[in-house]
Amino acid sequence: MALVKLQDDEAAASEAREVFEDIRRTRNTDYVNNIWRALAVHPPMLKRFWAYMKEVMVKESKLDSLTKEYIYLAVSITNNCEYCIHSHTAAARNKGMSDEMLAELVEIVALANAGNRLTMGLQVDVDERYKPDFS
Amino acid sequence: MALVKLQDDEAAASEAREVFEDIRRTRNTDYVNNIWRALAVHPPMLKRFWAYMKEVMVKESKLDSLTKEYIYLAVSITNNCEYCIHSHTAAARNKGMSDEMLAELVEIVALANAGNRLTMGLQVDVDERYKPDFS
Amino acid sequence: MALVKLQDDEAAASEAREVFEDIRRTRNTDYVNNIWRALAVHPPMLKRFWAYMKEVMVKESKLDSLTKEYIYLAVSITNNCEYCIHSHTAAARNKGMSDEMLAELVEIVALANAGNRLTMGLQVDVDERYKPDFS
Amino acid sequence: MALVKLQDDEAAASEAREVFEDIRRTRNTDYVNNIWRALAVHPPMLKRFWAYMKEVMVKESKLDSLTKEYIYLAVSITNNCEYCIHSHTAAARNKGMSDEMLAELVEIVALANAGNRLTMGLQVDVDERYKPDFS
Amino acid sequence: MALVKLQDDEAAASEAREVFEDIRRTRNTDYVNNIWRALAVHPPMLKRFWAYMKEVMVKESKLDSLTKEYIYLAVSITNNCEYCIHSHTAAARNKGMSDEMLAELVEIVALANAGNRLTMGLQVDVDERYKPDFS
Amino acid sequence: MALVKLQDDEAAASEAREVFEDIRRTRNTDYVNNIWRALAVHPPMLKRFWAYMKEVMVKESKLDSLTKEYIYLAVSITNNCEYCIHSHTAAARNKGMSDEMLAELVEIVALANAGNRLTMGLQVDVDERYKPDFS
Repeated sequence: MALVKLQDDEAAASEAREVFEDIRRTRNTDYVNNIWRALAVHPPMLKRFWAYMKEVMVKESKLDSLTKEYIYLAVSITNNCEYCIHSHTAAARNKGMSDEMLAELVEIVALANAGNRLTMGLQVDVDERYKPDFS
Repeated sequence: MALVKLQDDEAAASEAREVFEDIRRTRNTDYVNNIWRALAVHPPMLKRFWAYMKEVMVKESKLDSLTKEYIYLAVSITNNCEYCIHSHTAAARNKGMSDEMLAELVEIVALANAGNRLTMGLQVDVDERYKPDFS
Repeated sequence: MALVKLQDDEAAASEAREVFEDIRRTRNTDYVNNIWRALAVHPPMLKRFWAYMKEVMVKESKLDSLTKEYIYLAVSITNNCEYCIHSHTAAARNKGMSDEMLAELVEIVALANAGNRLTMGLQVDVDERYKPDFS
Repeated sequence: MALVKLQDDEAAASEAREVFEDIRRTRNTDYVNNIWRALAVHPPMLKRFWAYMKEVMVKESKLDSLTKEYIYLAVSITNNCEYCIHSHTAAARNKGMSDEMLAELVEIVALANAGNRLTMGLQVDVDERYKPDFS
Repeated sequence: MALVKLQDDEAAASEAREVFEDIRRTRNTDYVNNIWRALAVHPPMLKRFWAYMKEVMVKESKLDSLTKEYIYLAVSITNNCEYCIHSHTAAARNKGMSDEMLAELVEIVALANAGNRLTMGLQVDVDERYKPDFS
Repeated sequence: MALVKLQDDEAAASEAREVFEDIRRTRNTDYVNNIWRALAVHPPMLKRFWAYMKEVMVKESKLDSLTKEYIYLAVSITNNCEYCIHSHTAAARNKGMSDEMLAELVEIVALANAGNRLTMGLQVDVDERYKPDFS
């Protein structure tokens, strides 16, 4: 149960409705999902996060669009964000991720979480050769 | 300061030395880095984790080798594993990651960690359309 | 579904009932919420945590009562504790937090989680001037 | 050891230098701390995060400036971000936080991390009365 | 709602069914729980994790079987993995954990999460005497 | 570098010195380690945490003393608390933990962190049979 009222198009402030419209245009869909309708309770917050998301995840850059979704998902799984796992799995599937690719992603996330703890548990020091030299 | 003595080739048990040799062969290098020398304090642990790592990260599969490193790094940054961040950044650079690509990765990890908390903080419910239907 | 039986007033051990009474007195309400009824399965645990909570969150001190709730909430959101987010949002609202203030809090928590990962991802060293000098 | 070269004023791209200047103006100081010099390796990332930080942490809003620092610190402690803990403790001290107030903050963060796990460990269900009703 | 279809015995690939059989034999039960049926969507992942679990948790070693469950549970509570907390609490109860022992475990997990943040919040340096000397 | 001045016996407030004495008596040693000297900057915080620690970790109860250390360590490794990992590894060794037992503990912590993410990544639902029935 969300802690704030999800803003439908009628209830949303005009600043929020403009963001909804940009989401629709950018994603080429009519559907605006719950997180944006929740953020709309405070329009500047909605506007800022959508702008950030659009710049980092949507705008063309060195990393391709599906790789970006993998990275976002890896974080969301590590943090156990149920909403984010569901919405970004859906997004990644739309961009071509199969069940097998999802399984591979999840297994790497599991392996890394294990490897992180082996290293922390034994408090292993960084090898000299991994320390960058900018002199 | 590691909590166990790093095992050099002379000190390592023969079961550990065999893993060291496989690491060298697989990576085509003479260098065996600290985490493996620490794990060698308990050879079955070393053997199991190396086998897991090799299967998941080295063996050819649907996800390419650099994408796998990105996923591993995204987890390691989220967990703040200093050793893992250093070693897997080095690995990703060896596979072609530039400073700009590293910056993009780090920014997506930051964005996702933010997005996760916006969603958790407002306790947003998963949209019906993101729930898979297997009936 | 809780993993232990919530203790109602009849079932609770007398040591637990005394804590329930102190909760009622301290908060000026008849209602004892679920976490305390769960902790009551092991009365010394209930007693200790309530005493700790009362000392740190209820007793007058340098930080005012609403600021304390913000800090508690910031942690609970970062850890994604659904119960804690709900109960401490309710508590903060009782102390005057509006939807807009909740939104601001959540956005700072998101920003900090992002900033933490930018810093960890690039492994930035602490500036000399931020290191306290106690000599 | 940072994974990218910290950009001093000479080396920084002009887009990054402009952000440095805005940081100086906004904070009324000549000093630009390490995190910004690291982010400058990818100027759009620097620009975005500084803009986000400025909007959320610097701009006047419902929560006062010191309360915002407490919230940022609470997250940074929970995530164990050494850099962030040092820099935001310094910032909070500049805004009036005493050793005693720092101690209170740290103790609430500890208490909340404990309370979160008591609740998760027993998997306590949210009380009906804490679920908002927006019908 | 799981993101992949749980594989029942009929639907599962033969490689997965063999793992199901080994789970049944090892645990002396007919029941194969959901996590294994989910992992079965990618049989090599199922096979690897079951082998790892069996080696570490089932095989006789220095730590007894109930102690291992406590450690697994302590991690699962800290990470708030609802499924894992439920399944490993059930497993620990089967091995003799009472409600009181569960309460003690949960309280230590809470205490440690608090102690961790007291230490991180004040950035306490490791005492010289806790640093191992392997010279 | 700790963010507060460690309090030696001379500088400490009398309320803090009494706790130091109790630590010495309880542990049968002259040495008071850094975390307690840091907490002493705010004596009520020191007093409360020491009392909590003593009740939960030192007082005789259902779980034996070494098992408690394992649980504390499992949490500290998962959270990557460097200080806590060092001090509680030392404590566990004093109570009989060998290098091999440490290795087993670390491997279970790694396995659990992996298992947690496999489960979260696939969002597996809790089996009906793991849900307690208190009716």
